[in-house]
Amino acid sequence: MSIAVESFLLNPTNTGTLQRQVQDLVTDGILGGRFRPGDRLPSSRKLATHLGISRITVTLAYTELVANDYLTSRGRSGYFVSDQAPAPVDTLPPPAGPSTVDWSRTLGGRIGTSLTISRPEAWRDYRYPFIYGQPDQRLFDHQSWRRCAMQALGRRDFDALTADAYEADDPELVAQIIRLILPRRGISARPDQVLITLGAQNALWTAAQVLLTQRRTAAMEYPCYPVLRDILTQSRCNTTELTVDNAGLRPETIPPETDVLFTTPSHHCPTSATLPLDRRRALLKRAQDDDFLIVEDDYEFELGFMTRPAPALKSLDTDGRVIYIGSFSKSLFPGLRLGYMVAAAPVIREARSLRGLVLRHPPGHIQRFAAYYLTHGYYDAQVQRTARAFRARREVLDESLARNGLEPAGRNGFGGSSVWMRTPDGVSADDLAARLRARSVLIEPGAAFFRPGDARGQNHYRLGYSSIDSTAIPTGTALIAEELARLQR
Amino acid sequence: MSIAVESFLLNPTNTGTLQRQVQDLVTDGILGGRFRPGDRLPSSRKLATHLGISRITVTLAYTELVANDYLTSRGRSGYFVSDQAPAPVDTLPPPAGPSTVDWSRTLGGRIGTSLTISRPEAWRDYRYPFIYGQPDQRLFDHQSWRRCAMQALGRRDFDALTADAYEADDPELVAQIIRLILPRRGISARPDQVLITLGAQNALWTAAQVLLTQRRTAAMEYPCYPVLRDILTQSRCNTTELTVDNAGLRPETIPPETDVLFTTPSHHCPTSATLPLDRRRALLKRAQDDDFLIVEDDYEFELGFMTRPAPALKSLDTDGRVIYIGSFSKSLFPGLRLGYMVAAAPVIREARSLRGLVLRHPPGHIQRFAAYYLTHGYYDAQVQRTARAFRARREVLDESLARNGLEPAGRNGFGGSSVWMRTPDGVSADDLAARLRARSVLIEPGAAFFRPGDARGQNHYRLGYSSIDSTAIPTGTALIAEELARLQR
Repeated sequence: MSIAVESFLLNPTNTGTLQRQVQDLVTDGILGGRFRPGDRLPSSRKLATHLGISRITVTLAYTELVANDYLTSRGRSGYFVSDQAPAPVDTLPPPAGPSTVDWSRTLGGRIGTSLTISRPEAWRDYRYPFIYGQPDQRLFDHQSWRRCAMQALGRRDFDALTADAYEADDPELVAQIIRLILPRRGISARPDQVLITLGAQNALWTAAQVLLTQRRTAAMEYPCYPVLRDILTQSRCNTTELTVDNAGLRPETIPPETDVLFTTPSHHCPTSATLPLDRRRALLKRAQDDDFLIVEDDYEFELGFMTRPAPALKSLDTDGRVIYIGSFSKSLFPGLRLGYMVAAAPVIREARSLRGLVLRHPPGHIQRFAAYYLTHGYYDAQVQRTARAFRARREVLDESLARNGLEPAGRNGFGGSSVWMRTPDGVSADDLAARLRARSVLIEPGAAFFRPGDARGQNHYRLGYSSIDSTAIPTGTALIAEELARLQR
Repeated sequence: MSIAVESFLLNPTNTGTLQRQVQDLVTDGILGGRFRPGDRLPSSRKLATHLGISRITVTLAYTELVANDYLTSRGRSGYFVSDQAPAPVDTLPPPAGPSTVDWSRTLGGRIGTSLTISRPEAWRDYRYPFIYGQPDQRLFDHQSWRRCAMQALGRRDFDALTADAYEADDPELVAQIIRLILPRRGISARPDQVLITLGAQNALWTAAQVLLTQRRTAAMEYPCYPVLRDILTQSRCNTTELTVDNAGLRPETIPPETDVLFTTPSHHCPTSATLPLDRRRALLKRAQDDDFLIVEDDYEFELGFMTRPAPALKSLDTDGRVIYIGSFSKSLFPGLRLGYMVAAAPVIREARSLRGLVLRHPPGHIQRFAAYYLTHGYYDAQVQRTARAFRARREVLDESLARNGLEPAGRNGFGGSSVWMRTPDGVSADDLAARLRARSVLIEPGAAFFRPGDARGQNHYRLGYSSIDSTAIPTGTALIAEELARLQR
């Protein structure tokens, strides 16, 4: 390609002859990897005009660079980066002087993130990837998605895709969520009760920012989704952890000073327990009596294939106390970064102001793409296809676990995309995961879901089946059993 | 379309007969606008199985709904929402009980936003829209953008578009920014010194969050970009406002206790002053001597068509003190929500952790679309085409202003997409804007750029030329002069 003349800027602080400076601009570009073999340099006339220097200076610099093998001259076609030019150096030259900034003081490292679920980047190269939360290309209707994208990329939608919408969401997407998604959870909502977010995690973060301060108290389930713990830590509120049992959260354990409770009633993360109706009612009563709010993370609700779906907590809420969070990460794919929050209008107003400050609005493109995917019914088909495939995988997994004498930890009648497991006493899930990795099996050790130092973290692991083919599950499970047996010896 | 059976959920708290409840589910759907005339209901058998009730209950409910004109029966084809069904009501029924939540206490309205630039939503219906910051469909290469999107939507890029990338950016986009954009600003960077953001505003917000606390002091230019003031207010740091002159920020006015300075050296927002080289050097020296950091907002740098582009402040920074912010909002379009931050690796690491918590990563789609637009050279062509068009508009505007005796406030030798104007003494820019609006002319009153109550806010306005055609500029300008003359009488 041609190197744009605007790539060249003389640094006014530089010393040395102009010819030298021009040469340095070229060699810096080549060594920095910005100019590549075959790239064409601007003509000497053009570069001279641009830099406000004489043409002969540029010609002399180019000639010198040809002599040094950085450039080649192809007669009237001009100058090109030579195939013999030195290879780019990996690191840039260090700054001219030693930096005088004390970063540890200046930054303070205030954004702490705890242990996350470890997963090799090249997880696709493993034969038995029992991992969680990545899209499955085999199940995604790529063709229809592309068709919806093409429709949205037409001239008619130019404004929706490209305009600065300030604080507003795409009204098409909001309408589709209200019409097609929320009713399945028993939820009615008006447009001013819905906010589009950059995924469910962004909705959780927004809720925490809007509802919590250093003087307020949040209650969360324990064990729990590790990112939620980080979000609450960053908000600097007081936090209470409520240990769940086989049926999820126990409403009687919520301390009366709670301001906001975060919960996953459809199926608890990570144990998959579904909160029974009597507990849901008790929970809402507690919220009213003790005047706290509830953030309901309804992740993966589309995947409740083992039971008739229970209505969302939000659908039982007559008081506006529940802030409901949904996501397209599972029904479409996580790289889309789209989710939504449904709450009382004052909460949505405040959340929208915050979002307006942080990033204005979610990109117009992805909102309209998703709106069309919903409108045309592809979303429903996608959800059904995924739930069907996961049900089949789950059946194979349950059967394989039973055959190998491995028992899941706790009940799980919901479905979802993972099973929560306990290791035998004395066997560390980290050790197990490390050994299995060497045999091309990936499992997710449980420590990330617990407080650092909690022994139960070493005693649990998660088996995801959203990225593993049914046919790989029996052998993968057998390998887990084999390594477990070795570790117990 | 067919209404999915999953749309129906019996609310376990409801009383009344099952038949009544089924009828309510249907009427709620119709009155709430979710079920529309012509939509097909699930078969009675299917709905009965789904709800776990007898089929005859559903049939009786449907029959009753036909009698009430909500549904029509088309024999064996089933039941459909009737064309005679009542129209949806705009607001949903109020919640069953009065809400007991005291929102003013619970939320506290902590996310304050100040006055923003007012602009009617239907600005395209105005004949003389001197507005700022919206995309211009006439200049955008829609066809090539679509082509890049199609390429990215192919199977080869499935992972880049759909996978959960956690904290990572699209490496293709980062590489293109480093190779094609930063060198034009005289900036060299390694990938670990670049963070992709959801637009420049998101980069400013991130910088403020990472660098400021309640115990730190920010300095900002005055007047200034109103969103920056809101961002600093939300960070709760101390803030000093530094009044700019005709050449922008005066380095000698920066108080020694400053921790972070926010500046727009290429052309100050909103006055368009370009910071001269001696002040840039003085600024960097002050930063080193007094140990503060500089956030350089290089918005619209692509539009410096009136002068040879000055290298960015960041290009003179040997000490890692400058955090550089760029955006695709002007070179592509604002609805894309893409920008970038270039800074020392420790700053980028911290900013990335924060972003990971807030939203994980920018959507894969828009990152890869933009990467291809850069790779294929469309970006360069786009920038050149836009700068050419804006230069032509600016020439017409300057000439029209002169002919009508209107003088811009301060110097502006940069270019950009707007001119900063002063009203004659005693004439309020708000009044002027209101009168002009009635004559199909939109201007942007200056109050948003000043502190509330500062009289200078009433004395300034901005004329944007990014959305107005050259041919409309002379008449628009004449109308402004005409209304100004009336107001002075």
